[in-house]
Amino acid sequence: MMEKREVIFEGNEKRIFATDDPKLCIIHFKDMSLAYGGIKRAIFKGKGKYTNRISAIIFKALAEAGVPNHFVEVVSETEQLCRKIEIIPLQIVVRNRLCGTTAELLGVENGTMIPNTVYEIRYNCDKLSDPMINADHVVALGILSYNQMDYVMKLAEKTNAVLGELFDRVGIELVDFKMEIGRLPNGEIIISDEISPDNSRLWDKQTGRILDKDRFRHDYSDVTAAYREVMERLQKSISE
Amino acid sequence: MMEKREVIFEGNEKRIFATDDPKLCIIHFKDMSLAYGGIKRAIFKGKGKYTNRISAIIFKALAEAGVPNHFVEVVSETEQLCRKIEIIPLQIVVRNRLCGTTAELLGVENGTMIPNTVYEIRYNCDKLSDPMINADHVVALGILSYNQMDYVMKLAEKTNAVLGELFDRVGIELVDFKMEIGRLPNGEIIISDEISPDNSRLWDKQTGRILDKDRFRHDYSDVTAAYREVMERLQKSISE
Repeated sequence: MMEKREVIFEGNEKRIFATDDPKLCIIHFKDMSLAYGGIKRAIFKGKGKYTNRISAIIFKALAEAGVPNHFVEVVSETEQLCRKIEIIPLQIVVRNRLCGTTAELLGVENGTMIPNTVYEIRYNCDKLSDPMINADHVVALGILSYNQMDYVMKLAEKTNAVLGELFDRVGIELVDFKMEIGRLPNGEIIISDEISPDNSRLWDKQTGRILDKDRFRHDYSDVTAAYREVMERLQKSISE
Repeated sequence: MMEKREVIFEGNEKRIFATDDPKLCIIHFKDMSLAYGGIKRAIFKGKGKYTNRISAIIFKALAEAGVPNHFVEVVSETEQLCRKIEIIPLQIVVRNRLCGTTAELLGVENGTMIPNTVYEIRYNCDKLSDPMINADHVVALGILSYNQMDYVMKLAEKTNAVLGELFDRVGIELVDFKMEIGRLPNGEIIISDEISPDNSRLWDKQTGRILDKDRFRHDYSDVTAAYREVMERLQKSISE
């Protein structure tokens, strides 16, 4: 049995613990929610339980489809064991519709349908407010090579295909999601962090009902209930 | 002889006239300079003469190297005859060092050297402040197809190679430049607008002296003299 040790990272929405295996860590999902770069925050009792479970289901499905990621196993209601990675300071945002900051950036309606998938790269840097950059900037900054960047974009493409199908089966449209990446000690690049309603947009296919963090951003009711619904639908699907 | 007709576009730095040939227009280069999105402006007597001449030399060199552009011929000190294009609302910025807004965006020193060339796409839209976007956004907005976008990036790459060599021969480092593009009636995509010290960064290779619009942005003296120097060096080179 894995032994949980000291906290090695304390964030607003997550806490990470070392374990007795230097290659593994335990991620604790908190109930805290942050939006608009931390200006807006609230606690949703039970949220951590749902994001932990949803992210676990998603990462397991990805691994089964051959998309390497950091997830090992769920170890408690709000915690999962993961492989420890060296953080690569990039976020890849994958969009199947134009929403949020991108809809604003381009001056189009929120939810605009598009004929292609839009991939965005953000430079994970708080003091620069995570600016949107491109592959040339990534290489110029010495973060990744062009070949590595191509590989990451292929991971994003595959992730979008796998998750699009997973959510489609449970009547949910995967509108967009953000993925973070990291490097294993052997240099392999894998998906890390989480994928959950906290960093994706999920719409009920029948009704268009929002089942993600936008409920919090826009002050809608039943934030936690929506997260629970996503979890329950996914759990029902995988147990069938 | 071409007949100049009514003004079809009146900008701050340029005025465009129709001609008796519907396929051609005359571009007049003004002495007005704008910076920081128009917040800062000044008149530099003689500037239009130099930008007209420099852009003509550059576009001629590009055409000779097989890079299609709108330039036909110089028709007066401050005017050139060009092919009329339908504007494609994109700006391609090519950077051989990181300067200006990109240095700020990435949190690096102005003038940072890079191992690769950085290409940026901006969506030409005043009310959105010309945001930086990527090829996926271009396609999502229906501006160009992926194939057309690839072609435009190849034009930018070739332009950078041709101009880098042109300026190198006259002891100037081409730090960065912006190019605009347009469509001919037959659908062909070509380079349009201008390439001059007004939308590029040009540094003397020996001394690092700035020979472009940054002199105006940063309130250095001798703005017009720097433009004249660029013109004279280029003219001397092509007459050799």
